[in-house]
Amino acid sequence: MQVTVLYGERDVRLEDRPDPTIIESTDAVIRLPFTCICGSDLWPYRGIQAVAAPAPMGHEYCGFVEEVGSNVTSVEPGDFVIGSFFASDNTCPHCRHGYQTSCEHKTPVAGAQAPRLRVPLADGTLVATRDVPDADLIPSLLALSDVMGTGWFAAEAANVNRGSTVVVVGDGAVGLLGVLSAKQMGAGRIIAMSRHDARQKLAREFGATDIVTERGDEGVERITQLTNGVGADSVLECVGTQESMMQAIKSARPGGSVGYVGVPHGVTLDGADLFFRHVRLLGGPAPVRRYLPQLIDLVFAGTINPGKVFDLVLPLDQVAEGYRAMDERRAIKTLLRPSGN
Amino acid sequence: MQVTVLYGERDVRLEDRPDPTIIESTDAVIRLPFTCICGSDLWPYRGIQAVAAPAPMGHEYCGFVEEVGSNVTSVEPGDFVIGSFFASDNTCPHCRHGYQTSCEHKTPVAGAQAPRLRVPLADGTLVATRDVPDADLIPSLLALSDVMGTGWFAAEAANVNRGSTVVVVGDGAVGLLGVLSAKQMGAGRIIAMSRHDARQKLAREFGATDIVTERGDEGVERITQLTNGVGADSVLECVGTQESMMQAIKSARPGGSVGYVGVPHGVTLDGADLFFRHVRLLGGPAPVRRYLPQLIDLVFAGTINPGKVFDLVLPLDQVAEGYRAMDERRAIKTLLRPSGN
Repeated sequence: MQVTVLYGERDVRLEDRPDPTIIESTDAVIRLPFTCICGSDLWPYRGIQAVAAPAPMGHEYCGFVEEVGSNVTSVEPGDFVIGSFFASDNTCPHCRHGYQTSCEHKTPVAGAQAPRLRVPLADGTLVATRDVPDADLIPSLLALSDVMGTGWFAAEAANVNRGSTVVVVGDGAVGLLGVLSAKQMGAGRIIAMSRHDARQKLAREFGATDIVTERGDEGVERITQLTNGVGADSVLECVGTQESMMQAIKSARPGGSVGYVGVPHGVTLDGADLFFRHVRLLGGPAPVRRYLPQLIDLVFAGTINPGKVFDLVLPLDQVAEGYRAMDERRAIKTLLRPSGN
Repeated sequence: MQVTVLYGERDVRLEDRPDPTIIESTDAVIRLPFTCICGSDLWPYRGIQAVAAPAPMGHEYCGFVEEVGSNVTSVEPGDFVIGSFFASDNTCPHCRHGYQTSCEHKTPVAGAQAPRLRVPLADGTLVATRDVPDADLIPSLLALSDVMGTGWFAAEAANVNRGSTVVVVGDGAVGLLGVLSAKQMGAGRIIAMSRHDARQKLAREFGATDIVTERGDEGVERITQLTNGVGADSVLECVGTQESMMQAIKSARPGGSVGYVGVPHGVTLDGADLFFRHVRLLGGPAPVRRYLPQLIDLVFAGTINPGKVFDLVLPLDQVAEGYRAMDERRAIKTLLRPSGN
């Protein structure tokens, strides 16, 4: 089959590789009707994160179970399933505390930008939908595999509650779905920081009440003005740079919370500064597995439609253009369609 | 009157200064039956924190109101009152959110190692007890002014709940009262990190179930063993060094919380490390004012006796020896008695 492989900076290729098979008795192999590119794929694509090239790409997935290992009991061939970007056993103490992305047996999933995927720890990782979804729901279900669950975690980590004043730093798919998550959690005011028309529009559609185009300390000043000098109750950091992290921290009121889900690249925090700001911090790889049952229900009920972040659809064999479009911010998120699936 | 003044590293003197008077109409002047030395006074005493010498010392206080400004309405001469080390208006948005130490009008209190003290923003800062306390309660009430409230905030910031497994880093007065706070909040297991006999004994008396004497990464390893490889739900950081902070962070399980109240000195945190550890952080100057009514009730009811941290009692004119004893760890906390009060 054709698999997306990153060879180096801005060098992404489709390459023939054998179809995945069951290796461990706890594996499942699934067929992917759609797959997609993640904002976090851009870190290695841009050369900011070292990559052990050639690296099979793609960690977001949903699809039809084709085959399961002999010890898999919770899903079977024909099921439609969704999993997280980290496989987890869902039974260890960390999983039971709801932090499946810190599972004692966590395993990164890679190679999902392809027609088929082997998923380890299938019982712990995959959640089957009750019914096979209509095709038009599949992009939204695919979004649950990472970006929607990550936006949800950001909002939860930032302690969003009914009536909260929320700031979202970052207007990528995760930031936009952070807006949607905050809205679902009852936020009273949602300030999206974006200087990009199409993204502002989607942010508003997802529930943003205000848009701030300034960045850095100017952005913080604008937030301060908008909150009558108080600062926000909750800030979602969805970028991962020093500037965005400080913008998030400085936008929170004393006692406010920052949920940070942008993978930090070169971020350093000063202990005394954090101390005197009184800001609560929680971040990390989102424990998407925890949220899947609830989010699947919300998608099936039509309450949320996170698939709207896909604003470019390409056949898998144009994956390189999909990366370029996201790199150049022409697309928020690229949906890829493997041929014949 | 005789006021304690720090002139420079390890140079603390009693000095004649005028008695305090009402300056602002919102001030109160109180007479201090006891006063004390704080662990945080040791930072400038040891020369680790620059001091604009000569600096009047002391920020913990309780006592009898002698005089109030014309705009003070909530306390009156004769009342027994307790306040926080930061004066606050208790009406601004940050105060209403419970973060009085980030009050828009916060004012550090200084000069409490003396017979009398001027307290600014008296209405917002001071809490009067319903009755004049018996003399034997006064040390415990004095402890509420900082160390007890700080231990309580550490436990709350570290999300201590019924049944939690708690680690306390630091065996000074704040750490010991963090143990007491965690116990009050229903912690199931409290592991105190201490290598000092008298402090271990008091930790056990306050509710510690385990003592760990190792420090740094060895200490972390011991915590990992004691928690079956999982880590603690809640960690109270009550020191403020890079080593103690990292010990605290590494002792928490993924999804666990660190409440840090040791004023950070030279502490730097790596964003990516924090991210992948999934640890929730909240710290800062404890909003003691928020807790005073509740903690006063607990002291009057005899439920808590935080005054037990005072293991050295000296007349105020031996304040220099009080500092030395704490600096050399011969005393946990020094209680000072101004003559004639």
